[in-house]
Amino acid sequence: MDDASHHPAHPHGGSFPKTQVNRVKRVPDRGRYDKETIYAILDAALVCHIAYVIDGRPYCTPTAFWREGDHLYWHGSSASRMIRTQAEGVPVCLTVTHVDALVMARSGFHHSINYRSVMAFGTAHKVEDPDLKLRLMDNFIDRIYPGRSKLIRQPNKQEFKATTMMGMEIETASGKIRDKHVADEEEDYEAVPAWSALYPVVQTIGAPEDCARQLPGLTRPDAMEDFVPGARLDDVMAKTYRRRFGG
Amino acid sequence: MDDASHHPAHPHGGSFPKTQVNRVKRVPDRGRYDKETIYAILDAALVCHIAYVIDGRPYCTPTAFWREGDHLYWHGSSASRMIRTQAEGVPVCLTVTHVDALVMARSGFHHSINYRSVMAFGTAHKVEDPDLKLRLMDNFIDRIYPGRSKLIRQPNKQEFKATTMMGMEIETASGKIRDKHVADEEEDYEAVPAWSALYPVVQTIGAPEDCARQLPGLTRPDAMEDFVPGARLDDVMAKTYRRRFGG
Repeated sequence: MDDASHHPAHPHGGSFPKTQVNRVKRVPDRGRYDKETIYAILDAALVCHIAYVIDGRPYCTPTAFWREGDHLYWHGSSASRMIRTQAEGVPVCLTVTHVDALVMARSGFHHSINYRSVMAFGTAHKVEDPDLKLRLMDNFIDRIYPGRSKLIRQPNKQEFKATTMMGMEIETASGKIRDKHVADEEEDYEAVPAWSALYPVVQTIGAPEDCARQLPGLTRPDAMEDFVPGARLDDVMAKTYRRRFGG
Repeated sequence: MDDASHHPAHPHGGSFPKTQVNRVKRVPDRGRYDKETIYAILDAALVCHIAYVIDGRPYCTPTAFWREGDHLYWHGSSASRMIRTQAEGVPVCLTVTHVDALVMARSGFHHSINYRSVMAFGTAHKVEDPDLKLRLMDNFIDRIYPGRSKLIRQPNKQEFKATTMMGMEIETASGKIRDKHVADEEEDYEAVPAWSALYPVVQTIGAPEDCARQLPGLTRPDAMEDFVPGARLDDVMAKTYRRRFGG
């Protein structure tokens, strides 16, 4: 999909057009194409999985990432296989998945998982501009830990060189959500005496464990007030994201 | 990597040989190639992300899966794009990631995430034998919910046809683990007055929510005793896996 044909279709807000690439074919009523839904799923996530191709073979690598406008960014070692491949400008699919529940039905067919997922498609490029790269490095930290880039040591020359910042414009994307209870065949509710239930699944943060070599007098910065032990990680990430980028 | 050259190198137990495909290049001391470690990471997971290629483009799809010996299995709608593509016998990379902690260091460079991940490579094939397919459908349910396949309605003809079971032999794989606290540059411990800590991250199950149309008198089966509200999902999955497949 080239830029000229695509950009006019999704300025700000709005939806990604359904194409052969992003159309949700299986259980199409779970498909979501509006940016509000897709960006909410992305911005609540810390980690994604990125698919890319080397010599015709697919690879799937987990990595931390974040969104700025219609762009997604991630980073890696300049020496890593993923980054060396993607630096050349290759098509990637960046996928985020939140697991929300296990759903036990009265037939195997209707067992399910509640989830929110996004598949975002684009062409990964290396961020070459050093000023932009430095700003992105700060944003990456601050997107997770509000205000932290100002508290820590800035990258030295060697670290800056060893880190490659990758980005892609979201050319198209789709979201997929299942958010309901057991849904069985009508006749099975009466006919099948199997206990059926939904188990919620949440990912949470615990109490912080201080570095053993902490300088005296340091405590959690006020800007990190969203980091409440027991909080859902997706909630924390959504809140810290809004602190940095609004919305 | 063809079978003849590969199988002799990893019979039972043992390790996957390091090749260009699976070698962990970035932070190589985090790399793991022994089956015990790799299988423990896989068997503690409910969901994986599978990368595959259509018309030269990578796709990354989340799905539930499980392992039997050196094979991995997953399923999908016979109509889905992923399944239709993979049924033809295509290379895939199946990746599992457990996020264990956020690690806040004194420089951006040393910020990290504790995790356990596996990338498993192979060629996906459709399971054609109907008896094996039916057995796998039961195993898929029982691997998550011990004994449940005997309690629920068996697949009818239409469901059986609409479900494609996919499998792959693990041709090669690598694990990657980070499991440590803050690790800063020596001079930064004193020089940088930034609160530094690790936040544990866990994924847990909650209390079950009964189906609103539950038949009277049904309660959680004893075989599901691992499903304790508040339990870690990776622990539950590892335990229910062992109940079905031993180890």
